Amino acid sequence: MLIDKTIPFSYMLNKVKYDVLRVLLFSVAFHLLKHFFTDYLPPVPFQLPAILGTSISLILAFKLNQSYDRWWEARKVWGAIVNDSRSLVLQLKGFVDEERTEPRQLLHRMAYRQIAWCYSLGESLRGNEPIKEEQEANLSPEEINYIRKHSNKPLALLMCHVHDLKALLRLEAVNPYQQVQLDSTLTRLCESMGKAERIRGTVFPVTYKLIVHFFIYLFLVVLSLALVETIGVYEIPVLTFIATTFFLIEKTARHMQDPFRNKPTDTPVTAIARTIEINIKQILHDADVPKPLAAEKYYIM
Amino acid sequence: MLIDKTIPFSYMLNKVKYDVLRVLLFSVAFHLLKHFFTDYLPPVPFQLPAILGTSISLILAFKLNQSYDRWWEARKVWGAIVNDSRSLVLQLKGFVDEERTEPRQLLHRMAYRQIAWCYSLGESLRGNEPIKEEQEANLSPEEINYIRKHSNKPLALLMCHVHDLKALLRLEAVNPYQQVQLDSTLTRLCESMGKAERIRGTVFPVTYKLIVHFFIYLFLVVLSLALVETIGVYEIPVLTFIATTFFLIEKTARHMQDPFRNKPTDTPVTAIARTIEINIKQILHDADVPKPLAAEKYYIM
Amino acid sequence: MLIDKTIPFSYMLNKVKYDVLRVLLFSVAFHLLKHFFTDYLPPVPFQLPAILGTSISLILAFKLNQSYDRWWEARKVWGAIVNDSRSLVLQLKGFVDEERTEPRQLLHRMAYRQIAWCYSLGESLRGNEPIKEEQEANLSPEEINYIRKHSNKPLALLMCHVHDLKALLRLEAVNPYQQVQLDSTLTRLCESMGKAERIRGTVFPVTYKLIVHFFIYLFLVVLSLALVETIGVYEIPVLTFIATTFFLIEKTARHMQDPFRNKPTDTPVTAIARTIEINIKQILHDADVPKPLAAEKYYIM
Amino acid sequence: MLIDKTIPFSYMLNKVKYDVLRVLLFSVAFHLLKHFFTDYLPPVPFQLPAILGTSISLILAFKLNQSYDRWWEARKVWGAIVNDSRSLVLQLKGFVDEERTEPRQLLHRMAYRQIAWCYSLGESLRGNEPIKEEQEANLSPEEINYIRKHSNKPLALLMCHVHDLKALLRLEAVNPYQQVQLDSTLTRLCESMGKAERIRGTVFPVTYKLIVHFFIYLFLVVLSLALVETIGVYEIPVLTFIATTFFLIEKTARHMQDPFRNKPTDTPVTAIARTIEINIKQILHDADVPKPLAAEKYYIM
Amino acid sequence: MLIDKTIPFSYMLNKVKYDVLRVLLFSVAFHLLKHFFTDYLPPVPFQLPAILGTSISLILAFKLNQSYDRWWEARKVWGAIVNDSRSLVLQLKGFVDEERTEPRQLLHRMAYRQIAWCYSLGESLRGNEPIKEEQEANLSPEEINYIRKHSNKPLALLMCHVHDLKALLRLEAVNPYQQVQLDSTLTRLCESMGKAERIRGTVFPVTYKLIVHFFIYLFLVVLSLALVETIGVYEIPVLTFIATTFFLIEKTARHMQDPFRNKPTDTPVTAIARTIEINIKQILHDADVPKPLAAEKYYIM
Repeated sequence: MLIDKTIPFSYMLNKVKYDVLRVLLFSVAFHLLKHFFTDYLPPVPFQLPAILGTSISLILAFKLNQSYDRWWEARKVWGAIVNDSRSLVLQLKGFVDEERTEPRQLLHRMAYRQIAWCYSLGESLRGNEPIKEEQEANLSPEEINYIRKHSNKPLALLMCHVHDLKALLRLEAVNPYQQVQLDSTLTRLCESMGKAERIRGTVFPVTYKLIVHFFIYLFLVVLSLALVETIGVYEIPVLTFIATTFFLIEKTARHMQDPFRNKPTDTPVTAIARTIEINIKQILHDADVPKPLAAEKYYIM
Repeated sequence: MLIDKTIPFSYMLNKVKYDVLRVLLFSVAFHLLKHFFTDYLPPVPFQLPAILGTSISLILAFKLNQSYDRWWEARKVWGAIVNDSRSLVLQLKGFVDEERTEPRQLLHRMAYRQIAWCYSLGESLRGNEPIKEEQEANLSPEEINYIRKHSNKPLALLMCHVHDLKALLRLEAVNPYQQVQLDSTLTRLCESMGKAERIRGTVFPVTYKLIVHFFIYLFLVVLSLALVETIGVYEIPVLTFIATTFFLIEKTARHMQDPFRNKPTDTPVTAIARTIEINIKQILHDADVPKPLAAEKYYIM
Repeated sequence: MLIDKTIPFSYMLNKVKYDVLRVLLFSVAFHLLKHFFTDYLPPVPFQLPAILGTSISLILAFKLNQSYDRWWEARKVWGAIVNDSRSLVLQLKGFVDEERTEPRQLLHRMAYRQIAWCYSLGESLRGNEPIKEEQEANLSPEEINYIRKHSNKPLALLMCHVHDLKALLRLEAVNPYQQVQLDSTLTRLCESMGKAERIRGTVFPVTYKLIVHFFIYLFLVVLSLALVETIGVYEIPVLTFIATTFFLIEKTARHMQDPFRNKPTDTPVTAIARTIEINIKQILHDADVPKPLAAEKYYIM
Repeated sequence: MLIDKTIPFSYMLNKVKYDVLRVLLFSVAFHLLKHFFTDYLPPVPFQLPAILGTSISLILAFKLNQSYDRWWEARKVWGAIVNDSRSLVLQLKGFVDEERTEPRQLLHRMAYRQIAWCYSLGESLRGNEPIKEEQEANLSPEEINYIRKHSNKPLALLMCHVHDLKALLRLEAVNPYQQVQLDSTLTRLCESMGKAERIRGTVFPVTYKLIVHFFIYLFLVVLSLALVETIGVYEIPVLTFIATTFFLIEKTARHMQDPFRNKPTDTPVTAIARTIEINIKQILHDADVPKPLAAEKYYIM
Repeated sequence: MLIDKTIPFSYMLNKVKYDVLRVLLFSVAFHLLKHFFTDYLPPVPFQLPAILGTSISLILAFKLNQSYDRWWEARKVWGAIVNDSRSLVLQLKGFVDEERTEPRQLLHRMAYRQIAWCYSLGESLRGNEPIKEEQEANLSPEEINYIRKHSNKPLALLMCHVHDLKALLRLEAVNPYQQVQLDSTLTRLCESMGKAERIRGTVFPVTYKLIVHFFIYLFLVVLSLALVETIGVYEIPVLTFIATTFFLIEKTARHMQDPFRNKPTDTPVTAIARTIEINIKQILHDADVPKPLAAEKYYIM
C-alpha cells in the first residue's frame, strides 16, 4: 500500500515511460509530416477527438471503478481475516477451561498457528515461500513436517486447526455447541482464504485492456492530427501531458486490480499479519510482543 | 477465461468482422454518394454526432458495468463453491470418528462425490454431458445408477450427500449439532448451484441489445455524413477504426454476460473443479493428486 | 422474460408509437414555422442541445441502472426461492425418518405444498387468482379450505408449513436442532416473499418519470430548432430517429423496473415455479414429472 | 410515497419556485445589462457553459444515485421489518404449545405488541408521538405504563418482547433452541430499527448541497451570458426551462434522501404497518381485520 | 458530521484557499503574458479544455462516489455498533436470571463496560486517549488496570466481556445455547471494530490524489490559455470560480474518505456512543440518564 508520504516522481514516471515515449515520438513525427505534406493531410475537425475523448473517459472511469472494487474487496477480505483471527482466539479463551493442562496447550498451539497462518497466506498469495523461517517459532516441528506434504500450505494449517478442535471436543474442553461455533469461525477463515485466492487468480478481462490501449492511441492520433493544424509546435508538450495523464490512470487501475503481486501497491498483507500477531499475543499475555511493521520509503507491505 | 498471454489478433477481429464489414460498406457508399450528389446531401453539423456519441458511450458504459457484474458474480459463485467444498471436507474430517470403519467410508465417499459434483455442475452449466467418464472413478456404481434417473444431475448428487449425512447421524458418527452444521454447508452448496443456474438461465434484457445496435448504427451513419464533408476520403479508415472499437466493446460485454457458454471467455469451471480436486485429495492424503489444469493457447477452461 | 429470438419489430414500435408520433408532429410543425417565420426564430446555437443531450443521457443512464437493479433483484429473489424450495425438501428428506408412516406423509404434504406455494406466489404477485385449478392436486381439501379465509394466500400456505413442522417435532420425527434448521429455511422463504412484494409494491419515484419526460421533450424541441437552421427538411427523419431511441430506452427502463405486471418483460415466475416442481418431484421419485414450461413466441412467462 | 396517479403540477412547481424566480430575475437583469452595456460584456464562448454543464450533470447524477440508494435502503429496511414481524408470529405459532393457557396468552400479547411496535417505530422516525391512541388496543395498560418511562419507545417495546420470551422459556413453552431462534428474530428487528434511525439521523454531506447549488448558479450565469449574445430575448424562457429542470432534479434528490420527514415523498411506513397488522391478525384468526390504508390524493403515507 | 445549519463561509473557503490562490496567480500571470507576448502564444482551440473538462469531471465523479462509499460504510459500521450494543444488553436481560446476585452483577458490569467500549473505540479511532476520565465510572478499577497493559484498549475490553461470559456459563446463569448466541453478538462487535480500523488504516490510493491534482491543474492551464483569447480580463474571475468549485469537490471528497480524523466532517462517534449510553441506561432502569450530545456551532462530533 502506498502511504501518504511524498511518492518519488520517478516511481510514477517509471510506470508509463514507454507509453509516453511512444506518444512523444509520433507527435513529433506528425508535426514533421504536417510541415512537409501539409496539403495532403485531412483537416480533422476538433469534434472528432472530443467524441473519442468522451468515450475513452467513460471506459477509463469504468476501469477505475472495477479495479478500485477489486482492491477494496481484497482489503475487506484481509479485514475479515483480522476479525476472524481475533475472534477465534477470543472464543478459545472464552470456551476452553484453561486450568486443565492439555486443553490450555491446545489453545496456545492454535493461537500461535493462527499467527503463522496469516503470514503464510500472505506470502503464498504473493507467490513467495509460504513459511518463512521466522514463522517456525509459531509452529511445532510436527506441524512443519505435516504441511510440507501439501501444496496449499494455509489449507494444511487449517486442517491442523480442525484436528485440534476435534481433540478439544474429545477432551470435553469445549461443549458441542462451542465446537460448532468455533467451526463456523474456521469456515469463515477458509472463505476469506478462498476469496483472496479468487482475486489473485482471476485475470481482469484481457480484452478490455487491449481495447482501452487501442482506444487511447486512436484518440491520441486523432487529437494529434487536429492539434497540429491549430496550435503548431505547442502540440508536442500538450499531447505528451494529456497522454501521460491517461496512461497514468490506466496503469494505476491495472496495478490496483492485482493487489497480491509483491509490489508497492499491494494490499499490505505482511503489515496486517503483524497487527494480528500483536493483538493475539497481547490476548495471550505473551511478553514478547513485536512492534508494528515499519513502512518502507513510500509504501508498506 | 482469457489469460494474460498474447491473444491472437484474429480472435478479436473474428468477433466483429461482420459489423465492421457493414460499416466499411456504407462508409464507402456514403463517400460515393457524396461525390456525385454533393448538392443534395444535408450539411450535417458536427455537434449532432457528438451528442449521439455521448449518449452511446453512456449506454455502452452501462452495458459494460452490468456484464462485468454478471461475470464477476459468476466467478464469485464458483469461488464460494471452492470454499464450501473444502469446508465440507474439513468439517467431515473434524466431526467424524475415523477410527470406526463405516463412518470413515462414508466420509471418503462424500469427499470424492464432492469432487464429482463440482465437475458435473460445471459441465451441466455449459450444456455438456454432466458426468464425464473420468468422474466415474469418484462415484460408486450405485450412485451412477441413482443419478441416471434425474434430469438435474448435480442436484441428484446433493441428494446422495443428504442421504449419507442421515446415515452418519444414525451411526452416531456425528452429533445432532454437527449434522445441522454440515447441513448448512450443503445448503450453501445448493444455493451456489442455484445462483449459477440463474446466471446461465437469465437472458440479458434483449431490448437493450437491439437498442444499442440500432444506436451505434445511427451514430455511425450521422458521423459518416458529417465526416464526408470535412475530411473526404480519410473518412473511410477513421470510421472503420471507430466502429471497430465500439463493436468490440459491445461484443466483449455480450460475451462476459454469459459466462457458461463453453467458449474461451467462460468462467474457468473445469480448472476450478481441478483445484478443488487437488485440495480435497491432499486433505484425504490421497497419493494420486492430479496437476492443475493447463491453459490452452490463450485461455483456460 | 424476453428470450433471445427475433422480437417482432411491431412489439418494440408499439411501446413508443405515441411519443414518436408527437415528435414527428412538432418537428413538422417547427419546419413549417421556420419556413414562414424564418426571421423571427432565434438562431439556436448547436451547443445548447449538446449540453441538454449530455444531461439527459446521464439521467437516462441513472434510470437504466436503477431499473436494471430492480429487475435483477427480482430475479435474484426468485433464484433464492428456487434454492430454498429445493433445500427445504432436501432437508426434510435428510431429517425425517421415512420408515414411519405419519412423518412420511407430512414430508410429502409439505413438499407438494411447497410446489403450490411457488405457483401461488407468482400468480398473486401478478395480481392473478393465486390458486389455479391445477394446483389443487398439490393441496389437500383442508388446506384449500384453510387458505380461503386468508387475503395473503402464500402466507397462509407458509402457516400450514409451520403447523406441520410443529407436528413433526411432536411426533419426534425431527429433533429440536433440525426443527430450528427447518424453521430457518421457512424464514428465508418468508423473506423472499416479502422482498418480491416490496419490489411489486414500491412505485419507482414518480417525479423522475415526469422530469425525464419533460427533459427529453425540452431537448428535442431545442434540437429541432437548432437543426432546422442547418439541415432543413432532413431534420424530420433525424429527429424522429433520435427521439425513437431515447423513448425506447426510457420505456424499456420503465418496463424492467416493474417485473411483476403480467407482461412479456416480467420475471418468468411460472417457468421458475415449473423448474422447482420438476426438481422437487424428482427428489420425491414422483413418476409424473412435467416438462419445462415452453416459451411463447418471443417470451417466457 | 408518491403514487402513480397524476401529481398536481402545483406540487412540483412549489418545490422549486424560489430558485426559478431567482433565475428569472437574473436572466432578465442580464438581458437588460446586455442591452445597455453591450460593449463592456465579454463574448462568452459557448464551450464554457458546455464544460460546466457536463460537470454539473455528473455531480447531479452522483447525487441522484446516492439519494436513490438511501431511499431504496429505507424501503428495504421496512421490507425486512415486514418479513421479521411475520416470521416472529409464525415462529411463535410454530413453537409455543397453544393448548396451555398462559403461553397462549403470552403469544397473543407478543403478536399484538409487534403490531404496535411497527406503528410506533414509524411514528417516532417521523418525529410524531410514537404511541397513537388507536395502538392502545394492542397494548396492555402495564405495557403502556412501562414504556412511558423510556425516551426510545420502540426499544422499550422490544424490551417487553425479551421479557415475555424469558417467561416462555421459564414456562417451558419453548425449548432452549427455540428461544435462541426467536432471539435471533428479535435481534434482526432491533437491527432494522437501528438502520432506520441511522438513515433518519445522518445528514447527507452538507458541503455537497452547497457546492451543487453554487455550481448550478455558476453554470446558469455563464450560460445566460453566452445565450444573450446569440438568441436575444428568447434567452429568458430557455434559461428558465433549463433552470427548472436542474433544480427539480436537485430538489427531488434532496427529498428522497430523507425518507422519514412526514412528507408525501416519505417511505409509506403507516401503510406498511397496516399491512403487517392485516397479516398478523389473519395468522391469529382475529375477526377484526382492518382494510389496507387508502391513498391520499397522490401519495400514501 | 456537519449539520444542516449555516456553515460559515470561512470554513469552506479555508479548505481550498491555497489552491485558489495559486490559480489566481497563474491566471493573472497568463493574462499579462498574453498582453505582452500575444503573438507567440498558441491559439488554443476551445475544444481542448472541453475534452479535459469531461475527463476530469468523470474522475472527480469516481472519487466522489468512492469517498462517499467509505463515509457511508463508516456510518453503517457505527450503526451496527449501536444495534449490537443494544442487542447485547437485551440478550443479557433476556437470558440471565436476575434474581441471583452474582449473575446480576456480571450483567450490569458487562452493560456498563459496553458503554465504555463504545466511547473508547471512538476515541482510539480518532487517535485520542482511548479511556477518558468520565469513562472510569463505567469500569471497575480491576478492568482499568487490566486494559492498561494492552495497546488495543477496545480489544482488551472485549476480552473482559469474554471472560465474564465464561463466568456466566460456569454459574449456570446462561445455558450453552445462550452462551453461543451471546458469543455471536460479541463476534459481530469485534467485526465492527475491525471494519472501522480498516477504514481508518487504509489510505485511499495515493496515486489517484496526485493524478487528480495534476489533471485539474492541466485543465485550468489549458482553459486559461483558451479563455485569455476570447474574454480577456474577465478570464480571471471566471477561472477562479471554476477552480474553486473543482477544488472544493476534491477536498470534500478527501475529507469524507477519512471519517475518523478528529475533524468536523468525522463520523459523529461520540454522539453515537452517547445515544448508546442513553439506551442502555434506560434498559437498565438507571436513574442517571445523560442528555444527547449537543452540536457544536455547525457540526457534531
